[in-house]
Amino acid sequence: MAQKIIFTNDINNSLNQVLEDIDFNKLFVLTDVNTSHYVAPKLAEVFYNHNATHITIPAGDTNKNIDSLTQVWSKLGNNGATRRSLLINLGGGMVTDLGGFAASTFKRGIRFVNIPTTLLSAVDAAVGGKTGINFNGLKNEIGVFNEADAVIISTTPLYTLPKEEIKSGFAEMLKHGLLKGKDTFNKLLAFDFDNFNPDHLLDLLEESVNVKREIVAIDPHEKGLRRALNLGHTVGHAFESLAMSRKSPIPHGYAVAWGMVVELVLSHLILKFDSDVLHRYAQFICDNYGVFYITCNDYPALISLMKHDKKSNCGEMNFSLLSDVGDIKINCEASEEIVEAALDIYRDLMHI
Amino acid sequence: MAQKIIFTNDINNSLNQVLEDIDFNKLFVLTDVNTSHYVAPKLAEVFYNHNATHITIPAGDTNKNIDSLTQVWSKLGNNGATRRSLLINLGGGMVTDLGGFAASTFKRGIRFVNIPTTLLSAVDAAVGGKTGINFNGLKNEIGVFNEADAVIISTTPLYTLPKEEIKSGFAEMLKHGLLKGKDTFNKLLAFDFDNFNPDHLLDLLEESVNVKREIVAIDPHEKGLRRALNLGHTVGHAFESLAMSRKSPIPHGYAVAWGMVVELVLSHLILKFDSDVLHRYAQFICDNYGVFYITCNDYPALISLMKHDKKSNCGEMNFSLLSDVGDIKINCEASEEIVEAALDIYRDLMHI
Repeated sequence: MAQKIIFTNDINNSLNQVLEDIDFNKLFVLTDVNTSHYVAPKLAEVFYNHNATHITIPAGDTNKNIDSLTQVWSKLGNNGATRRSLLINLGGGMVTDLGGFAASTFKRGIRFVNIPTTLLSAVDAAVGGKTGINFNGLKNEIGVFNEADAVIISTTPLYTLPKEEIKSGFAEMLKHGLLKGKDTFNKLLAFDFDNFNPDHLLDLLEESVNVKREIVAIDPHEKGLRRALNLGHTVGHAFESLAMSRKSPIPHGYAVAWGMVVELVLSHLILKFDSDVLHRYAQFICDNYGVFYITCNDYPALISLMKHDKKSNCGEMNFSLLSDVGDIKINCEASEEIVEAALDIYRDLMHI
Repeated sequence: MAQKIIFTNDINNSLNQVLEDIDFNKLFVLTDVNTSHYVAPKLAEVFYNHNATHITIPAGDTNKNIDSLTQVWSKLGNNGATRRSLLINLGGGMVTDLGGFAASTFKRGIRFVNIPTTLLSAVDAAVGGKTGINFNGLKNEIGVFNEADAVIISTTPLYTLPKEEIKSGFAEMLKHGLLKGKDTFNKLLAFDFDNFNPDHLLDLLEESVNVKREIVAIDPHEKGLRRALNLGHTVGHAFESLAMSRKSPIPHGYAVAWGMVVELVLSHLILKFDSDVLHRYAQFICDNYGVFYITCNDYPALISLMKHDKKSNCGEMNFSLLSDVGDIKINCEASEEIVEAALDIYRDLMHI
């Protein structure tokens, strides 16, 4: 079944429509402590009319763990969820990933609907069927591929988002732009975070989600093409883990934005990716995201993290790189030496 | 992909063949403390040649839990498993269910092969893609549908099985016989546990597994027809849970054997199932399995357990019943009164 994705400025109406189309016997709503407070009230009437049971978990990626997961499983079971029940995941990627995994495994799978409340989850986590939790110090180490019955993407929750959250999500849109082609990419590089219209953002968002959707439709289980979506993520995940080990976590989107600088450098070194585009991108990131500080003392840890990435085999580092904007090459391997060189150039570009 | 099921008297050769056909980069073998000791040594050479990493968990259904699961996930991760690694589940249903779930969720899914070591798991758990663990006091509350790449069914491990284990597995074969038709069913009722040839058992086993296979192929996710395989299980699971709460657990197959007596009574009361066949079946169970003692004081607990069964909706009790041998009706609801009447008749038939 193709995943239904709804782009809307009227989230209440869209949710009512979705609930009408799905045959379920009991409704559950998963939020974290933030979305429970800031977003759930906007949908209170719909939830009340369906006699929904609310489940709230702690916020933040560090809580995307087995404790929160077992809490959701228990709440579902203790409140009479059956195989015909429906779970709505209302939150950022942490909630849609964990809630999607909880639903996919409760009684061997109940249906779920995602309502992303951050730009990042709207453009990335909520769409495409990746669910999971962090485990054993690794991000998304445990999970399954399973698509939500519907995803409702609305700018309504975005109005209240801090600018940092918008930027975090925008990084994935930049990635989709790099995968799509020069037109989309240039439109994104012209974006002004200090002065934008959320409705214009909804259009850009739809274009961006459709890039992901086309790729996922061809390769849902990441056997090949879907790895294109990992652009920036091998290095990005390593940055995230390093930041976590420094006890100063960074937003996922920022990690990807910086990770893409390194991976575009690798693309330049290995596939002759245009150095002008690389410089324009790096400048945009520097201006809007600042920099992630690393020294050469961090290289061994970063390389070890990249070798343990899910995408890697037997200790080889595996990247999705670009030979040009819109022209992806998956399964590129890179030696330690070339990765170290790319990290050196990253530090130059970022003026570290 | 259709699940490959191999019936063999040469388990080493078959395993070698399977490992040749699958492209993997690292082999893991999951056993419990029993199969690690009694069965793994028979395959030691194959495992050694593939440099397999062994993971051993505690035995028994009470250990089919989240602790054992996280132990398997950690061992996989800490020993370098990647998405291209392969897990062999060597054990009874507890090992194949839990190992199948661990493999299905580790890095969003790695491949696995089941080698059932009990008759019960050969005829039931190892085939058909149900994986999972017990949670929150409920059997198989958490899991996914996902088929093993291959299942190797051999009588080799069966030679060492205690008679109780043979009987436990045989109950599922009786179920398949009831679903298939009178010929198969009568062949099974003529079986002599005190005097049988394991090779003859392999033939019966293949016939039995094929009944399940045909049903699962039509309805892998238990939307309809597959519920036929729940014959005996709504009551059987309730008996198992009751026995567990009495701190004297009963084997799953025995619970199903007794559960089928109750459900054949229900079939007789609701669908006019032949009373002669019911009596012959009840006599066979009484003679070979003994009885599971209940009094009318147990009825409320049993009924509450049946209402919480995964197959049930909103507190209705749901059964798969027979109008005749070979003629199943799924989604039969029954009132508390008729279930109590059936439990009364069960006690009569069992001479309790």
